[in-house]
Amino acid sequence: MTIPHPHPVDFMELALRQAEAAAARAEVPVGAVLVDPATGEVLAADHNRVEEWHDPTAHAEMLVIRAVATSRREKRLPFAELYVTLEPCAMCAAAISFARLRRVHFAAPDPKGGGVLHGGRFFEQPTCHHRPEISGPTTAEAASAELLRGFFRARR
Amino acid sequence: MTIPHPHPVDFMELALRQAEAAAARAEVPVGAVLVDPATGEVLAADHNRVEEWHDPTAHAEMLVIRAVATSRREKRLPFAELYVTLEPCAMCAAAISFARLRRVHFAAPDPKGGGVLHGGRFFEQPTCHHRPEISGPTTAEAASAELLRGFFRARR
Repeated sequence: MTIPHPHPVDFMELALRQAEAAAARAEVPVGAVLVDPATGEVLAADHNRVEEWHDPTAHAEMLVIRAVATSRREKRLPFAELYVTLEPCAMCAAAISFARLRRVHFAAPDPKGGGVLHGGRFFEQPTCHHRPEISGPTTAEAASAELLRGFFRARR
Repeated sequence: MTIPHPHPVDFMELALRQAEAAAARAEVPVGAVLVDPATGEVLAADHNRVEEWHDPTAHAEMLVIRAVATSRREKRLPFAELYVTLEPCAMCAAAISFARLRRVHFAAPDPKGGGVLHGGRFFEQPTCHHRPEISGPTTAEAASAELLRGFFRARR
């Protein structure tokens, strides 16, 4: 019996569910899932916890990278792929590079705070020593952007 | 009675002692100290723990910011100044900005991995929404650079 791998969009759906959970807890709604694409296993799933933890570094991407790296006792995860609902910021882009992630899938671009397509474009710098493959914006862009718009609209 | 504030160089000396402690534990020798300049209080002091924790994000700067923010339950620390022995990378520069630190003092520049004077120069980007004051390289540059050179020489 072969176990079919979930289609990649399923992982982004999981990331979107995490983003919704963040919004329900008054966190900026961004979710992330770290996956082993060879097995289809979800290694970690989390969302922003900046407010809950009073931690300015507690972005969804940082949390899933730290959870998997520390639990496996491996500072580099070159087999792993990240699904995240928003373009990573400069902090998270650098962390993705340090962790040697194989690929990053992001749903919505982030002109105000992104660090992949915007700002310092970390992966394009000579100070970047590992560049993951990039997939994004994806077809989940509209769903992610609508979550973020709704969140900030409610707070105005 | 007035209590004299320590001279700023004292805080960088503390950061250098942290960097030495890192080297003794086979960590890249970078140390950081977070300070309240109004009181002269050292809020946190730490060094890289990437190897110890198997955590690619465990840079000295990240650890002191997280320690102080989470223990005070304040995601922003606009009164605080950071002393670090090496120019912060893109990840740490963004974290410094998110934490709204008032000033960053760094000892040695880092052409290979720095994110303040090099690479994406995070603080100069339109995606950066808080720019701390910057002091560096400082007079402790030589001491910090020599620690790093000795560390990498021993590993070649």
